[in-house]
Amino acid sequence: MVSELATRIGAELLGQGADIEIDEVCALDEASAAGISFVSARKYLPALRATRAAAVILTPELAAEAPCACLVVDNPTLAFARVVELLHPRRPPPAGWHPSAVVAASAQIHPSASIGALCVIEEGVVIEAGVEIGPHCVIQRDSLIGEQTRLVAAVTVCARSLIGKRVLLHPGAVIGREGFGFARDGERWIRIPQIGRVRLGDDVEVGSNSAVDRGAIGETVIGDGVKIDNLIQIGHNVEVGENTAMAACSGISGSTRIGKNCTIAGAVGVAGHLEIADDVHFTGMAMVTRSFEQAGAYSSGIPAMPSADWRRSVARFRHLDEMARRLRRLEEQVTELQDAQPRSSPERWRENSDKTA
Amino acid sequence: MVSELATRIGAELLGQGADIEIDEVCALDEASAAGISFVSARKYLPALRATRAAAVILTPELAAEAPCACLVVDNPTLAFARVVELLHPRRPPPAGWHPSAVVAASAQIHPSASIGALCVIEEGVVIEAGVEIGPHCVIQRDSLIGEQTRLVAAVTVCARSLIGKRVLLHPGAVIGREGFGFARDGERWIRIPQIGRVRLGDDVEVGSNSAVDRGAIGETVIGDGVKIDNLIQIGHNVEVGENTAMAACSGISGSTRIGKNCTIAGAVGVAGHLEIADDVHFTGMAMVTRSFEQAGAYSSGIPAMPSADWRRSVARFRHLDEMARRLRRLEEQVTELQDAQPRSSPERWRENSDKTA
Amino acid sequence: MVSELATRIGAELLGQGADIEIDEVCALDEASAAGISFVSARKYLPALRATRAAAVILTPELAAEAPCACLVVDNPTLAFARVVELLHPRRPPPAGWHPSAVVAASAQIHPSASIGALCVIEEGVVIEAGVEIGPHCVIQRDSLIGEQTRLVAAVTVCARSLIGKRVLLHPGAVIGREGFGFARDGERWIRIPQIGRVRLGDDVEVGSNSAVDRGAIGETVIGDGVKIDNLIQIGHNVEVGENTAMAACSGISGSTRIGKNCTIAGAVGVAGHLEIADDVHFTGMAMVTRSFEQAGAYSSGIPAMPSADWRRSVARFRHLDEMARRLRRLEEQVTELQDAQPRSSPERWRENSDKTA
Repeated sequence: MVSELATRIGAELLGQGADIEIDEVCALDEASAAGISFVSARKYLPALRATRAAAVILTPELAAEAPCACLVVDNPTLAFARVVELLHPRRPPPAGWHPSAVVAASAQIHPSASIGALCVIEEGVVIEAGVEIGPHCVIQRDSLIGEQTRLVAAVTVCARSLIGKRVLLHPGAVIGREGFGFARDGERWIRIPQIGRVRLGDDVEVGSNSAVDRGAIGETVIGDGVKIDNLIQIGHNVEVGENTAMAACSGISGSTRIGKNCTIAGAVGVAGHLEIADDVHFTGMAMVTRSFEQAGAYSSGIPAMPSADWRRSVARFRHLDEMARRLRRLEEQVTELQDAQPRSSPERWRENSDKTA
Repeated sequence: MVSELATRIGAELLGQGADIEIDEVCALDEASAAGISFVSARKYLPALRATRAAAVILTPELAAEAPCACLVVDNPTLAFARVVELLHPRRPPPAGWHPSAVVAASAQIHPSASIGALCVIEEGVVIEAGVEIGPHCVIQRDSLIGEQTRLVAAVTVCARSLIGKRVLLHPGAVIGREGFGFARDGERWIRIPQIGRVRLGDDVEVGSNSAVDRGAIGETVIGDGVKIDNLIQIGHNVEVGENTAMAACSGISGSTRIGKNCTIAGAVGVAGHLEIADDVHFTGMAMVTRSFEQAGAYSSGIPAMPSADWRRSVARFRHLDEMARRLRRLEEQVTELQDAQPRSSPERWRENSDKTA
Repeated sequence: MVSELATRIGAELLGQGADIEIDEVCALDEASAAGISFVSARKYLPALRATRAAAVILTPELAAEAPCACLVVDNPTLAFARVVELLHPRRPPPAGWHPSAVVAASAQIHPSASIGALCVIEEGVVIEAGVEIGPHCVIQRDSLIGEQTRLVAAVTVCARSLIGKRVLLHPGAVIGREGFGFARDGERWIRIPQIGRVRLGDDVEVGSNSAVDRGAIGETVIGDGVKIDNLIQIGHNVEVGENTAMAACSGISGSTRIGKNCTIAGAVGVAGHLEIADDVHFTGMAMVTRSFEQAGAYSSGIPAMPSADWRRSVARFRHLDEMARRLRRLEEQVTELQDAQPRSSPERWRENSDKTA
């Protein structure tokens, strides 16, 4: 019932329909007679006015606009996250090991943990209470998986990795690979054995087919609450501060340190050995080649334009330096021409007084 | 025999050698006495004239140039695709389950389907006729795999995904992961449970280590005939129209809608919540930050140039706005100088009449 | 002991402490009383002077600066790589097959090879001496794995791949996938069966979640000593020359040939059908749209800057061509103004003599 839900998430209930049964969340533009949706910004006002959901979670200033029951809160997105959990609870797998899992004798697995079909748990691994390891995961030797952490499926955790509590690792994620470190021997590359490890903090998330390499020596450290999307590369000895979020297809090169509460949009590339301050925001496809010591938003790249226009601009870009020199020369020539003008010109007088001002 | 092959693909046979035995396809520059190749464009004319293949598939206007048997068709690339299938048929695996597969009791698997070694098929999964699941695949609960679809190996299909008919999923593909959706709670990110699903149409292909996230609510929809290369990210609630093709390393952010028959070249980044029309073509590494409502080709990025030149152009790029302002000021100054010139100058007269024209 | 280590790597021993026991490598800024570190460049001089390591590997000209035992060599990074191997030897797994592995009857596996838990080795595969196949790998039919090669875990090697000796394949790597080749049939894409294969040379490395596609016809060839980082795409029929190294998130499109000893930094995109000479170096995020026939360093992209500045520069970039035209027009106007100036002006004389010079 709407009223119960309001109580459970601490929302004020406004409008009609307090006794409607709610059994699912829905999109604002979906017709669901038992559905609840949410509005996070004014730009959704037209959709809100037209909604056929039974109830909507929103902020006080939008409540008057809703044609249905309103659950009024300060942070509708957060309240909605809780409602989804309440209405669509995940079925956790049963505790215990699937008989097809290959578990080393020396692995210590808490009895409340669940180990899925065809997993491989190697020697010396420790798996704490409430952990869920989905099917087809590999946990290599001497790794630690903290309480309540969940590996969805097909995750590889390499040797000696330390995974925090309530971590979520998605299919195809590879944690703790030996990173990209070589010495030159003439023209050949000789691998420098990578003997460090990865430390993931609590509440970290790593997306599908992302890779976090172990330290060359020492650790690669992903701070508490860091969220890493799909297809992201984190090089050896990178450190990422708490609650920083990174969108898909980005890469952070080795030994770079990223601060807390940063947001890194999609397909950003960050060079190695840099320092990025707290609260830095890189927009999509930014090319980060130097350290940024100040909080703020940084961007790069050229947004897409019609290919014919782009070709013309690119051709000019190659000659920007020459253009700048020609501009400077013209400025000198024009000044010279101005100086050569007859003294009687009133424009001339004005200009001179500008100059001496 | 060349003549048989011509009949089977509906080609007109020209030139010598109708009775040569053909047993393989080959590259145009490969010497293969029993090989057949193809020419798709005039730029390969030199290679065609020098070819030592036994037969070549080509268009009528190139037939006179070939030193061997010609199979003349309108679309040589398409005809060649059929010839490869005829000469190099794939051996399908036998129907039935490998004994090492872990198959849930409630899964419904058509007797003609093949389930490879060490696969995991969870509760409620439906696998239709003629499906091939290669080794090491995971199909999570309540997913549907349509007729004749093939999962090559090591594919992960997450819960409740709907996979069409004749779909091809390559090793490492992850379909239906819970996407990247969070609410802020102060500085912390709280996951919004992603309760939607993925729907792949018929004849879709998803490459190695690509990821298609499920809808947050509702569906992520990949239309019939869409071809997705390796290492591609498709965010939650994205919709991709029929027959659109995307090359490797591209990413489409959440809730963006891409039209039909688009081509997206490699390493393109598309921001979220955009609308891309049908028949739009993005060139490689394009940075798509706004909607495109018109069919056409769009580009961005700066092609590589010698690093020294690049550094100079980049330094000027940072001051482009200042350069533009200086240019505007110069224009004003020059106009002023022109206006101050003696009236008797013939150039001056011409210029004034230009202005009033 | 320091002195023993010096002997084993052929270093000259300078300074105090020849008899200290060394049992680990450490970072220069780590306090390790039994640790050895290294210095590869003068920029680490402050860290060297402050180090609390027991010994340091360095070049002759830095030896006087070290507060500890010095192992003097020409190439400290290379010497360090050897020391790491000596002090931190990897424990190789035992020879033989894990009982959970699924091995085809016709596979030929050398008795000294190790096959990990839950691997799948298909028909006709040949595995040579000393090979280590970690858990959860799939080797599809008729592939060859050369001596001493190591697949860490969860690697997929597709049919008919040829893998050299001492190759290292990281978790999630996919070798030999059927590449992205289609013919158009009206609006539909028809797959061209990819019947070629992949050939990896000796001492090649392929990182996590990278993909090397097989040839369409013929081979994709990765030369001896090539190092490929994580999340890299190599298209069909690409050839990469010996000892070329590629950093994470890069992509090479089909049929491109890259020379020897190239370095390709992170997130570089290389278009298809190009020729890249030996000793070419692309900096991070370079967009390579044409062949480069000369050795050298090439770059592209716009480094990140404050978003507000970036927006202004980008707006001007769209009008670069117009700016260049306006600049040209101004130059003409200024020349005209100069020509119209009285003959008596000394500046005028000087300028004219410049022109005729």
